[in-house]
Amino acid sequence: MRPAGGVYEVVVRSARKKTHQYPPPPLVWRSARRFSLRLVQAAAALLLAFGAVLAFPAAALAAQPAAAPGHSDLQFVISSFSLLIWGALVMWMCAGFTMLESGTVRTKNASMICLKNVGIYSIAALTYLFIGYNLMYVDVGDLIGTFRFLYSPLEVEVAALADDVSGLGDAIGAGSASMSNWLFQMLFVATTASIVSGAMLERVKLWSFWLFTVFLTAFIYPIVGAWTWGGGWLEQAGFQDFAGGTVVHTVGGSAALVGMMVVGPRFGKFRRDGTVKATPPSNVLVTTLGVLILWLGWFGFNAGSHGSLATPQDVIVMSAVLINTNLAAASGMLATVIISRRVFGRVGLSSSLNGALAGLVSITAAPTMAEHWWAVIIGAIGGVLCTLATWLLERMRLDDVVGAVPVHLVAGVWGTLAAVITTDVSLATQLVGVGSVMAFVLTASFVVWKLIDLVMGVRVAEEIERIGQDIGELGIESHPEFLLAPDDFDEY
Amino acid sequence: MRPAGGVYEVVVRSARKKTHQYPPPPLVWRSARRFSLRLVQAAAALLLAFGAVLAFPAAALAAQPAAAPGHSDLQFVISSFSLLIWGALVMWMCAGFTMLESGTVRTKNASMICLKNVGIYSIAALTYLFIGYNLMYVDVGDLIGTFRFLYSPLEVEVAALADDVSGLGDAIGAGSASMSNWLFQMLFVATTASIVSGAMLERVKLWSFWLFTVFLTAFIYPIVGAWTWGGGWLEQAGFQDFAGGTVVHTVGGSAALVGMMVVGPRFGKFRRDGTVKATPPSNVLVTTLGVLILWLGWFGFNAGSHGSLATPQDVIVMSAVLINTNLAAASGMLATVIISRRVFGRVGLSSSLNGALAGLVSITAAPTMAEHWWAVIIGAIGGVLCTLATWLLERMRLDDVVGAVPVHLVAGVWGTLAAVITTDVSLATQLVGVGSVMAFVLTASFVVWKLIDLVMGVRVAEEIERIGQDIGELGIESHPEFLLAPDDFDEY
Amino acid sequence: MRPAGGVYEVVVRSARKKTHQYPPPPLVWRSARRFSLRLVQAAAALLLAFGAVLAFPAAALAAQPAAAPGHSDLQFVISSFSLLIWGALVMWMCAGFTMLESGTVRTKNASMICLKNVGIYSIAALTYLFIGYNLMYVDVGDLIGTFRFLYSPLEVEVAALADDVSGLGDAIGAGSASMSNWLFQMLFVATTASIVSGAMLERVKLWSFWLFTVFLTAFIYPIVGAWTWGGGWLEQAGFQDFAGGTVVHTVGGSAALVGMMVVGPRFGKFRRDGTVKATPPSNVLVTTLGVLILWLGWFGFNAGSHGSLATPQDVIVMSAVLINTNLAAASGMLATVIISRRVFGRVGLSSSLNGALAGLVSITAAPTMAEHWWAVIIGAIGGVLCTLATWLLERMRLDDVVGAVPVHLVAGVWGTLAAVITTDVSLATQLVGVGSVMAFVLTASFVVWKLIDLVMGVRVAEEIERIGQDIGELGIESHPEFLLAPDDFDEY
Repeated sequence: MRPAGGVYEVVVRSARKKTHQYPPPPLVWRSARRFSLRLVQAAAALLLAFGAVLAFPAAALAAQPAAAPGHSDLQFVISSFSLLIWGALVMWMCAGFTMLESGTVRTKNASMICLKNVGIYSIAALTYLFIGYNLMYVDVGDLIGTFRFLYSPLEVEVAALADDVSGLGDAIGAGSASMSNWLFQMLFVATTASIVSGAMLERVKLWSFWLFTVFLTAFIYPIVGAWTWGGGWLEQAGFQDFAGGTVVHTVGGSAALVGMMVVGPRFGKFRRDGTVKATPPSNVLVTTLGVLILWLGWFGFNAGSHGSLATPQDVIVMSAVLINTNLAAASGMLATVIISRRVFGRVGLSSSLNGALAGLVSITAAPTMAEHWWAVIIGAIGGVLCTLATWLLERMRLDDVVGAVPVHLVAGVWGTLAAVITTDVSLATQLVGVGSVMAFVLTASFVVWKLIDLVMGVRVAEEIERIGQDIGELGIESHPEFLLAPDDFDEY
Repeated sequence: MRPAGGVYEVVVRSARKKTHQYPPPPLVWRSARRFSLRLVQAAAALLLAFGAVLAFPAAALAAQPAAAPGHSDLQFVISSFSLLIWGALVMWMCAGFTMLESGTVRTKNASMICLKNVGIYSIAALTYLFIGYNLMYVDVGDLIGTFRFLYSPLEVEVAALADDVSGLGDAIGAGSASMSNWLFQMLFVATTASIVSGAMLERVKLWSFWLFTVFLTAFIYPIVGAWTWGGGWLEQAGFQDFAGGTVVHTVGGSAALVGMMVVGPRFGKFRRDGTVKATPPSNVLVTTLGVLILWLGWFGFNAGSHGSLATPQDVIVMSAVLINTNLAAASGMLATVIISRRVFGRVGLSSSLNGALAGLVSITAAPTMAEHWWAVIIGAIGGVLCTLATWLLERMRLDDVVGAVPVHLVAGVWGTLAAVITTDVSLATQLVGVGSVMAFVLTASFVVWKLIDLVMGVRVAEEIERIGQDIGELGIESHPEFLLAPDDFDEY
Repeated sequence: MRPAGGVYEVVVRSARKKTHQYPPPPLVWRSARRFSLRLVQAAAALLLAFGAVLAFPAAALAAQPAAAPGHSDLQFVISSFSLLIWGALVMWMCAGFTMLESGTVRTKNASMICLKNVGIYSIAALTYLFIGYNLMYVDVGDLIGTFRFLYSPLEVEVAALADDVSGLGDAIGAGSASMSNWLFQMLFVATTASIVSGAMLERVKLWSFWLFTVFLTAFIYPIVGAWTWGGGWLEQAGFQDFAGGTVVHTVGGSAALVGMMVVGPRFGKFRRDGTVKATPPSNVLVTTLGVLILWLGWFGFNAGSHGSLATPQDVIVMSAVLINTNLAAASGMLATVIISRRVFGRVGLSSSLNGALAGLVSITAAPTMAEHWWAVIIGAIGGVLCTLATWLLERMRLDDVVGAVPVHLVAGVWGTLAAVITTDVSLATQLVGVGSVMAFVLTASFVVWKLIDLVMGVRVAEEIERIGQDIGELGIESHPEFLLAPDDFDEY
């Protein structure tokens, strides 16, 4: 689906249009990069084909056990309430991403992150209301749901809001309020968009990113969601993704990878002499707070994804989910501590925090096992893979500011595949699932990003990047009263 | 109720007593200010009269549907538990206000905000225990409840704590534990006091503000609460205020308006030449964190205000409340982004964050509609009104540090009136309600602030304002190790 | 159990080995210190003996009322769900400790705190999984539970995860899911370890502290837990500790006291001339945020500790717990404000925040009373004691960076003893309980700390302390772009 020449060439060229002084990377890296990108392309094409073949017979095995036949009123109340409470914690992840990202970037760009992320969250709420939800959940066939403007709540629930509860019986049979589901799903979309943001910080234009967010949350994410959770072909095929290891994290991470390549690395990140400029967090306290917020938010993310809280079995599942979620994060963190000490000779704070997040991502696709030590192992491997991917990305001269690709894409794919260990799903199904989702998202994101680049550009002017987006685009400073050391912007 | 001369003249004079070098604003602004203040006074008097007339017949239509007759034990448990959980999120708003305010002020005053806000929250807890709750909820007639020292829990609940559950039947009929209600209500009071704080930062004396907090939380807020939620004349008249668009936000915003006028603007904010000194947040990350904390806290604020979680209908209402709350915030934010770009030529971070808060305030009086797009519209208008009010206040040379009046008073009034769109309440009832509440709070707050000013003064000495309250009143610095650029304090 | 010479001498000598330039404190302080340490030792020995004597007859009175005989499915669901939700708030306390500590230390050590605390939390999760829980809860005799590797969930719950719910009846009779209990208990352990950390900041080695955390969370805490909550001798004796006033706070505070003495004070804290270097928080906003996070987390800590949410009585207890918890914090804060103004002539921000925490600790052992004003009194006394203890520790030249001992040990002991006011427990029982726990923890921690000191040292090299652990051990800075004023490190 891409003309010859390689994704990256086009990408770099487009970035260069606006960045005439950007020096070419040394030949050996360029080759490695080109090779790996070709690999990605080939794999994507293969998997998409494979997915398409598999999609047509659309294996009919039902993924979820049938809902308990007769839900009582109180079961309905508790299940719905649980979605609302856990949903509140997912909302909190918006603060987590905002703090993590704004603490990581140069101080001259921190205000922009704050505005951007609150905006992303707001945009996602509206697009999901107007378009996304219908596309993801309403009358989904094999591929997509309904293309209709504005989410319409269930009629009997609308009636209940007007004090007519006569028809509620049917709604209760569904297990939980459709409105509570809507809220929970909406909060997931916002998360996905935040993930993309993290890779492209410090040089992507505010309005371009917001425009991409519209497409991602209105179309790209909902289409993947329809395949996997809305009853589409992957769900029919038995694809296992409990809380979004693929739907949220692989999608977000893939869009981040493409976006990062389209926008190009920050000036000065990769120097002419082959060295890489270190860009440690500008505010470690804020970054750490962000990670801990995400950790807490993940409790809501994974526990709420069970959906039902009607029976003792449900609450046991939810308990296991939380235990495993917490253990995977802990072991992801500790594994990274040990690895980074062994490999790099020193404990890395950023890598350790990312290790915790990678542990969380790794367990997200299948966190219900009773053998909690599997969570320890899966999380630890996730942390290690994340560290290696961070190293590799840098070698490929891809500039991922917060490590969105290592944390969300790499650990997301790992976790989706690792689901075969603790559930009955087959590796083939998981491979098809993750492969086709990646192929779709990489392609769709690339098209959208290129369109945006054509129309309004994706990258800020060099001068704005130099002085920072806070002053350059917003006219404010994040810490106007603090004396800051000038960033060694020119050193490349 | 006020002698001729205008509130503002008295106010300015009182502020000037201690601020001899404060230059008079240009004539044209003074006239505008005087006119607008007269307008407020006239409107207040009119509305109070109107309210009094309306209050006597005390329209008997019951606002709330009757409680379900027989609550089961588990319904009681779930309803009460829901109040506790949502209440915990309301407690969290204390951190939201603290971060929002301390990130917004000059760094030299940030520690003072931290201490002040934790103190406000603590004072509110005690005054509500000792006086406020009884005045608001115990044996409320038309105007006030009982004036008695110390809240007494329900006897059967006290017995239950001592393991005697024989009398619990009656308590269960009430739907939820009186103690869980008490906790939830107490957390609301603290919120109201925090709102006032935001307008008067950087020059109000710590102990004066705490003293005002005592009056506000022990008397002013509970009296309004008795009218509207305790069974008083406004509730009897069918006044609609779901979660405090008037009771919390209009009350807090009105007290903030008066306080801000009594204490006068910060030195140097309004310069002799008519220009206004920009006072952007000193720590954007902290401010943003504060707004996101408030956003999350609002989930508890609005969802918990439904009070009952006994039936499927209840949880559907709660779901709709959260959807609408979140959408109003999102659209308030985005509308402000667009407006500020159109009007001011650049996206404003502070105004956008305040737009989100204004959206939240706007929806608070009536967030239960099934037509979620109304929440989008109401929130967007709230955001726009907030931006315009911010502009207007500055033109009137009123110095509202965080925008408490635009966010809480203006959007609070708007939201209370907008309730006629999505509920059955009449505009007249809402106008009487919001008008009489404003008239009462403006008057009562003014009297209290003037008394405090007479007794101990409300404004710190000029020298303390110059060096900052952190050093001047607390003897500490918020960032003792960071090098700070001196504030251009003298430039006026 | 200790050879002559005094704990402190050994401690100081061991610290001095690595800190040759550390000047001796003046004689008068040394005497006071030595005396007080002897006093602690004597008291500990006495209480241990007393405890041992009392333990053998092991008074058989059952502390807890018998569980309701037949729990329904929904009661099981709600109780377990409550543990999960409140547990999420306890997880959040990790962020609270991290922010409180990293905002309090010199900026040059702030990153280290972030890494250390996330690590502590992660370690606690794993050790409790592999060792701690079994030791604390599985087949506990009088003294300890089972020494077995890896926590095994209840078989019927494991079956339920595999969709076999046939045996769930028994599990349901237990009231709540064992897995939800496990999660909640695990989160408590992490809290305890974080407490210790606060006293030893800025000079303890990262890996040494993590190693101590392993011992604390795998052995020391679980053994105390087995005595008090796992059915051991103290629980049999009727010892009252609702939510960990002793089990968490006295344990954490005692280990902190020992650790602080073993590692010795920070260089320059206590000057040759007898004066004490002030070390105010380096980032007041972050410290305050930390305290407010802990305040919120405490809601989960105390409410969740009731364990059951099956009946109206349960939810009334939970409501009372939250009211009392909040009031104790508020009055602890306000009492400290008043005391510090009276005694020191000025309101202290740090002491006020610690006063709030001390109020929270004070109420933790017994927060269920209906007479809420007792919570006000108990919290206020806790705040005052904390302030006095802070003053005393400094006089004894013990360097407790965040005030872990005053807040957790002093208020923890006070709260445990104050439980006799509002519950039926006898003072003797409480004294024995708190005394034997202290004796055990002081002894065990001392042994562990000394072993660690022998093997790898507990204190960083002087040069690292001088330049800060961020640069010295991690190779990063917490605020690399901010200009900082040099710490007056040499001034002693």
